[in-house]
Parts: sequence; structure tokens; C-alpha cells
Amino acid sequence: MTLRKPYLLFLGEETLPVKAKTAYGLRDWVPEACLGQIRMPEGTVDLGLPAMTPAQAAAAGAGSLVIGVTPRGGHIHPGWHRLLLDAVDAGLDIVSGLHTPLHAVPGLAQAAARAGVALVDVRRPPDDLPRATGIKRSGKRALTVGTDCALGKKYTALAVTRALQAAGVAADFRATGQTGLMIAGQGIAIDAVVADFIAGAAECLSPDNAADHWDVIEGQGALFHPAFAGVTLGLLHGSQPDALILCHDATRTHVMSWPDYPLPSLTDAARLYEQTARLTNPAARVVAVSLNTSSLDEHAAARALQTASAELGVPAFDPLRSRLDGVVAALLA
Amino acid sequence: MTLRKPYLLFLGEETLPVKAKTAYGLRDWVPEACLGQIRMPEGTVDLGLPAMTPAQAAAAGAGSLVIGVTPRGGHIHPGWHRLLLDAVDAGLDIVSGLHTPLHAVPGLAQAAARAGVALVDVRRPPDDLPRATGIKRSGKRALTVGTDCALGKKYTALAVTRALQAAGVAADFRATGQTGLMIAGQGIAIDAVVADFIAGAAECLSPDNAADHWDVIEGQGALFHPAFAGVTLGLLHGSQPDALILCHDATRTHVMSWPDYPLPSLTDAARLYEQTARLTNPAARVVAVSLNTSSLDEHAAARALQTASAELGVPAFDPLRSRLDGVVAALLA
Repeated sequence: MTLRKPYLLFLGEETLPVKAKTAYGLRDWVPEACLGQIRMPEGTVDLGLPAMTPAQAAAAGAGSLVIGVTPRGGHIHPGWHRLLLDAVDAGLDIVSGLHTPLHAVPGLAQAAARAGVALVDVRRPPDDLPRATGIKRSGKRALTVGTDCALGKKYTALAVTRALQAAGVAADFRATGQTGLMIAGQGIAIDAVVADFIAGAAECLSPDNAADHWDVIEGQGALFHPAFAGVTLGLLHGSQPDALILCHDATRTHVMSWPDYPLPSLTDAARLYEQTARLTNPAARVVAVSLNTSSLDEHAAARALQTASAELGVPAFDPLRSRLDGVVAALLA
Repeated sequence: MTLRKPYLLFLGEETLPVKAKTAYGLRDWVPEACLGQIRMPEGTVDLGLPAMTPAQAAAAGAGSLVIGVTPRGGHIHPGWHRLLLDAVDAGLDIVSGLHTPLHAVPGLAQAAARAGVALVDVRRPPDDLPRATGIKRSGKRALTVGTDCALGKKYTALAVTRALQAAGVAADFRATGQTGLMIAGQGIAIDAVVADFIAGAAECLSPDNAADHWDVIEGQGALFHPAFAGVTLGLLHGSQPDALILCHDATRTHVMSWPDYPLPSLTDAARLYEQTARLTNPAARVVAVSLNTSSLDEHAAARALQTASAELGVPAFDPLRSRLDGVVAALLA
């Protein structure tokens, strides 16, 4: 699945930035791919990008209109239909991570066929995914894994990819979720894959590569999450990571929204991730801890990083606060 | 997903019993649900059931025609179309585990709508599966888990269910694969569920029940299988098993067809299953070993069972050879 950049970001009628996380993520991580923004008259979210109509964006070289908001229920609002049809007529692909498939918008599929553009539901994985082979691939791989969901696995993978590239190392970010996929312009929404093909999809995501090339793979879920651990394990096995970067929120004690499920210690988490990862890559090891310290002051954050690093004997960093030299050195060691 | 019994078993043009494993499984496990058989003129596989046309079967009370063979590629042969239409016209549901969806047979969906019967693709899970909640359910649960695929997890679950029932214990077999689903008349093909919903599907499969009721759940895959471990882990977490029955083939040393993947020891397998199962049920433990000794003579089988039992300190049995008193006692202990 490959998306056509650059993007025109659609913000709907949102007034709350939190409902436009996808758009902000794109603006922050791939500003060079974000040509402009467009919103409905009621909308107030502002990315600070030039306002453009689909026709203006297409004339300026845009490849796709990306739906950058997540309304309640994940539905495509009927009020958007006209705009989506206009975008298609202007020659833009439409990219959506919403629950409603783009083909459900009346007339959109026909208009897209006429215009020769694509309707891309990033939640929908390719139809022809294979089962995993377990065969070792060339190149190096890092995977971000977590003690829980929603604590920085995507952010960490993006930051580490950038840090490797800045250090002159050939590296690619490999997206496994919707926002990551839009940032990278390619990837597979791994949690939408049929269970039998999770590891197979993960194998496709980071194919054979040069021996010194790094794929930095966005993790999903957590082995300690009672709903999503299956996704995590399949992704872990198919990724065959040489290096695991263990992500944790410094102040979280339970699985988010699941008070009956306490989180493991970093030691226990690292042990289970390493043990299970070694099925497909006996060399797999946790090389660094990525600690989300967003709810700590600077002093407490520094202490938490020190404690985490001491517990596992590897560098600890907060990708929003720390230099990434330590993790880069650990990966290349 | 609930199937309408009893069945008319369709055997296609098969001449090899191994390609009719589904039909044999049904005949062996639910003879009371197998009313008759029907085959194409070229077919020679014989279950020893009365030959019946769809109309005769319907008149005798049949609820469904079940496709009991697996032709190469999993396709519905065009030569079968007439027979399937006849079955629908006679008032039978059609049940298929093949790759080709029943709706792809020209005219079949319309005929089924007209006749008011169902076309059931057992590979296709329900559309409305929820994500897992992790909330503990009432009743007791056993799950068969394995060192590998295809070594007797379904057979073991069926045999243990029967043994519990014979001992006067309220027990249900819970199917997670196609043949199991046809035997039980209900269930969910867990490997066909979208990754995000594996554990949620497993939760649906064994709902709240009486405190002394046992659900015996058919396991899938293996935590040690590089392609399918994600399915296994999601099923394990959603099942919340009190008891694990560890299934192993006494002579298998590697994952079947994957010579680079050696199997774990029983001890290591039991440890990882218990550790991961305890996320959703802290009381989970391996209570017995089910050993497939089909390639050993009686003496060697007895020795293998003894060795396995001694290694884990729990009863070991071969469901095809042994009495099941030991495992029943272990479950009820």
C-alpha cells in the first residue's frame, strides 16, 4: 500500500485539536508532505498550513486528500461527500483511516474510476497477504515494544529512524498503524489483518535489505494487554527484530483503562519480549528503554530515566526530551 | 454462528478418504447428526451412511448440506453448482469451510433467499465481534494448547468433553476451527478473525456459565509456531482457562514442515503457556499432557506417556489409546 504525496489535509468541522491527531502527526513528522489544509465552515482546528481547495492543491502538485480527523464513531459525515467528490474530480486520491469505507460514499467509486485516482482505506490491509515463512531476512531490524498501548511506540520508532538517518545510517520507518502509514506513505495496518496472516504481514513489511540497513518498525499493542497481545506477538515474530526498544510510561501502573491489569516491571517485560522474539531471531535483545516522562517535571524525569537505565543496564531516553545518541550507539554496537 | 443439524454430507468426486477428513470427523464425532451422504458420480469415498438426494434428506429432517471434502485450492467445483441449487431448493442450509464463498456460486444467494435458507461459510467469522474486555467470567474453562499445530488439540478437546460428560459433569466443547465448528454446530473460526478481535472472539466463545460447568475449548496454533503464535496468544487470553491441557506429538522434534524450528521441551512449553495465560487467569495451570503416540508401538507409547507424566508431574494420556480418568480427575481436583 503506497500513498501519493504530498497531501492536502482535511480537518472536517473539528474544533478540538485532539480529534485531529492524525493531521497534527502528519504536519509534525512530514511537513514537507503537507501542502495545505481544508476544513468545513464550522471547523476551527488550524495546522498553520495554507488553506486550499482541492483544485488549488492539485494544481500545486498534491497527490492525495487525507482525512486528518477522527469524528465520533469513525463515520464519514454526509456533509463531506461533496468535498470528497470535488477532490476526486480534481485528480486527488482520497486517503482515509475511518471506519466507513470510502466506497460507501455514493458515487465516489465511480468518480474515482473516471478520474483514474485511488480511494485508499488505510485500515484495510492488502487482500493477498501470505502466511509467514519464518525464513531469516537480510538487513537489521528494530521493533518498538511496550508495557502497554498508547505510550509512544510510534513516536519512538519515528524518532529513532530520524536519529539513525542523522547519524548517516540507512534506515526506514516501517508503519503498522494508520497514522504511521500516512506519515510513511506506506505500510500495513497490522491490527486489521486476519489473525492467520499477522506474522506474514509483518514479514512483508520489512523485506530483505542491505546488511547494514535498519528497518525501525512501529510496534502495536503489548504482550501484557488482555485484548491485543495476539497482534503484538505476531508482529514480533514476523519482524524478526535484532533490537527491541522497550517503551513505557514512567507514571503508568496499570493497562490504560483496565485497572485490574497491573503493568509488569521493566525487567519482566524485557524478559518476555526477548524470550518470545528469540523464536524467530535468537539474537534479539532489548537495547534501550524509551520512557514517556510527559507527566514528570525535568528533575523527576531525569531520575526516572536513570532508574530505568539502571534496572535493565541499557540506555534510557525520552524521545521528546533526550538526545538519542545512546540508543543509536546501542543499535550500532 | 449456529448450524442447523442433522446433516447431509457431500463428498464431491473424492476418491481419497484423506481429502474427506471433515466428513469423517463429523461421522465419527456426531454420528447422530449425520443423516446421509451424497457424492458425484466419479466419487468413491464411502462413509457407510445412506445415500440420499437433497430432497430425500430434507424429507427425512435434514437441516443442512455440509461440504465434507477439501479439494485442491479450496474451490467450489462448477460441477457442484446444480447440486447446491437443488439442496437450497429442497430447503437445506449449505455449510462450507472452503475458500470460495458460497455467494460466489451463480444464483445461489437468490435461491437461498427465495427458499429462506442460510448459506454458511464457517471460515467467515461474525461481523460484529467486540474487542476483549478482560473481565473474568463465571464457570470453569479448559483449553488445549500445543507444542505445534496439527497434533491433536481438537481431538483432545472433544475427547475430554465426552469424558467429563460421561463422568456426569456439565461440559461443552467450544469449537475454534472449521471441522470443530461443524461438529459442535457452533463456534468461531478464530484464525479468520481480524487481529484486533482475536481475544474478543475467544471471550464470546465461552460466555458466563454455571460455577461447576466446564467449557473445553479447542486450541489453535502454538506459541512456538513462527506463523500462528498470535492466534494462539489471543485465544489463550480471551479463553481465561483455569486448566491447560498441553498437547504434543511424541515423535515430533521440529515444527511440522519447518525444519529450522525445533520444538520446546514440555517443561519450557508448559512454563510459557502458564506464564502468558496468567495474565487473564492467575490460577491457570497445565493439568495434563495429551500425547499423540500414533507412530509408536504400544510399549513405546506407554514409555513415552510415563516420561511425559514424570517430566511435568501431571497425568499424561493419548486420547486415542488411554482411559481419560486421569485428566478428568485432574480437572475436577
